[in-house]
Amino acid sequence: MERPDTLEYSVQGFSSYVTNCGIKDTTLDLGVVYSHVPAAGAAIFTKNQFVGEPIKIGRKHNENGIFQALVVNSKNANVATGEDGYKKAMAICSKVATELSIDVTSVLPSSTGVIGHPLPFEKVVSALDSLSENLNEQADFADFAKSIMTTDTFPKFVSAKIGDAVLVGVAKGSGMIEPNMATMLSYFFTDAKISSEKLDGFLRKAANKTFNRLSVDTDTSTSDTLAIFANGLAGEVDEELFYTTLEELCTKLTRMLARDGEGATKLFLVDVNGAANDSEAEKIGRSIVNSPLVKTMIYKGDPNWGRVWMAVGKTTDVRLDESKFSLAWGADGAITKKDSSEVLTRYLQGNEEIILKVNIGVGEGSSRFYGCDLTEGYVKINAYYTT
Amino acid sequence: MERPDTLEYSVQGFSSYVTNCGIKDTTLDLGVVYSHVPAAGAAIFTKNQFVGEPIKIGRKHNENGIFQALVVNSKNANVATGEDGYKKAMAICSKVATELSIDVTSVLPSSTGVIGHPLPFEKVVSALDSLSENLNEQADFADFAKSIMTTDTFPKFVSAKIGDAVLVGVAKGSGMIEPNMATMLSYFFTDAKISSEKLDGFLRKAANKTFNRLSVDTDTSTSDTLAIFANGLAGEVDEELFYTTLEELCTKLTRMLARDGEGATKLFLVDVNGAANDSEAEKIGRSIVNSPLVKTMIYKGDPNWGRVWMAVGKTTDVRLDESKFSLAWGADGAITKKDSSEVLTRYLQGNEEIILKVNIGVGEGSSRFYGCDLTEGYVKINAYYTT
Repeated sequence: MERPDTLEYSVQGFSSYVTNCGIKDTTLDLGVVYSHVPAAGAAIFTKNQFVGEPIKIGRKHNENGIFQALVVNSKNANVATGEDGYKKAMAICSKVATELSIDVTSVLPSSTGVIGHPLPFEKVVSALDSLSENLNEQADFADFAKSIMTTDTFPKFVSAKIGDAVLVGVAKGSGMIEPNMATMLSYFFTDAKISSEKLDGFLRKAANKTFNRLSVDTDTSTSDTLAIFANGLAGEVDEELFYTTLEELCTKLTRMLARDGEGATKLFLVDVNGAANDSEAEKIGRSIVNSPLVKTMIYKGDPNWGRVWMAVGKTTDVRLDESKFSLAWGADGAITKKDSSEVLTRYLQGNEEIILKVNIGVGEGSSRFYGCDLTEGYVKINAYYTT
Repeated sequence: MERPDTLEYSVQGFSSYVTNCGIKDTTLDLGVVYSHVPAAGAAIFTKNQFVGEPIKIGRKHNENGIFQALVVNSKNANVATGEDGYKKAMAICSKVATELSIDVTSVLPSSTGVIGHPLPFEKVVSALDSLSENLNEQADFADFAKSIMTTDTFPKFVSAKIGDAVLVGVAKGSGMIEPNMATMLSYFFTDAKISSEKLDGFLRKAANKTFNRLSVDTDTSTSDTLAIFANGLAGEVDEELFYTTLEELCTKLTRMLARDGEGATKLFLVDVNGAANDSEAEKIGRSIVNSPLVKTMIYKGDPNWGRVWMAVGKTTDVRLDESKFSLAWGADGAITKKDSSEVLTRYLQGNEEIILKVNIGVGEGSSRFYGCDLTEGYVKINAYYTT
């Protein structure tokens, strides 16, 4: 299972605070992470053209390459709220900066939840009174991960050691997930010393191989944010190792996000090989992982593999040759068309992680995609009430 | 409601035959339409790159611009069946040609149903024995429409008079519907006299404004076919009137297909206006009508219009200006953001046909799209057994 238990490693120089400020109900809805010293930072934001008001501020504050605090509320996305929403997001940043005596441009704000409702920002601002006294000396990232959840069924966090340093990552997201340059909300914190330029490059590269290969429902959030804070307290680390570890942790979080897709019962991995190039492999992988007919087939284990055939063929702008195309199932690709549909049914119904391998047979391009099944649960979560 | 009752007008010079030949169960699974004289013809086929074997034959037979018979089986798509599937489809065409004493290149074949299963073509061929004796003198298109159904819940047919001539259209399709140049299967029959070149142009123009603006589930069928037979027995007609009528009937069938989308309870119409151009309006309309979060909101009438905002914004390759964007609901666009969510809920829950109007506010481009809601029914139909 992808569900994390406790955070294995702790990272020095970060404090946190989480609370319920009553935006919608009595569950955690506000979280702050504070770096004891200004941290080198980098961030990637949604490509949705209608972005949340906090995203507009985050883009500006990201320009300096320095972050010192992160403030996130759930239950309200502060999107489609115009000038008023922007002012509210700025007021929250200012409050955090004042309380922590830091530069307001080093505060990264995020909001996630319903779109188009005015943010009850007075509740947020008053919950931030005496913030510096309320902070945990040692950040509790498992708790922080809880405070940013919406329809997630479990908090998502990971950690790893890199030499003397530690890298921690948290993420939230369950629906409205086809990240375009980042996942819904994901943050990394490290005490490694590393420049914001390096962080920016590493973050983009890792996101392209992980979060950007994830789709729950083809819907790109207005609030997607992926950011990293590096406070340098543990000194320099091997940068290659740092990148490799970052990509590994991004992969783990991506798997958690897919596995916890709204209503999902299965993690669905698609490996595309033999495409004309990597970019065509991506198009094919995305088409398969997003096909409602393939996703429903994964759900109950209907061995109707012709739907994969359809989903590959409907990518009209890639090179395909029907006579060279093949598909197989399982980590080792042992189940093929030659097997009876009973064998495939048994595999599909007997596993929580389904791996599909398609070989296009026309070149060297490859790509891995992350998705989930489509169930009545997805419809229930999204049809009956405003999430 | 979109469900048709009886066919209003009958068209001269066509005979039909429908039967159950036992491909899967005991419902109708084979239909033939025969034109008493060679008819001018035109057809458009799927853009899916992995096409059904009958499509390969249909494309060849379409080159002459002459059709005299149509043979369609349901319950098996004859897709991903290779050389063997092609030979079987050809054998069926030859059988029809022999039985009716017509040229084999004037036979248009179609198959629809499960992908990747060998077609039990002996059953089809023996059901075609003595075909000419078994034909109804006057084609029964309502029955024919039944014989080509798969997961459709009702047969789809329309008719209209054009001067002294009549135009009849039938269609099938419920899932795997985001037609790219045609719907799943749709056929028109007329006794008007009109050249195949004209028919071809008319068919493409009408399809682009109707079937190509329809999406049930983003999945483009491997078997999409739209064809027209014009046997000329009623003589020439006003061509402008012919085109207008053809487009009207295509619109009616498109509405039926959307309304009968797998599991659908509502018809969802999206009017995009004020886009930079028509092509950008199409991208926006397609994004809205395909968004699972918008589709689930339509289902139970959750007034969460922020999801429309998201679905417009996620089209990254169109010109948008958040401050000029607006949306409204209802045929007259009377329900706007100014109304309470109770008003919107009442509209969404109280109507079987939901109309959304978005105004992009940056130009003159417009487009209408046809879709449906996403329900647990869609998941049920597609997850639990091979359809």
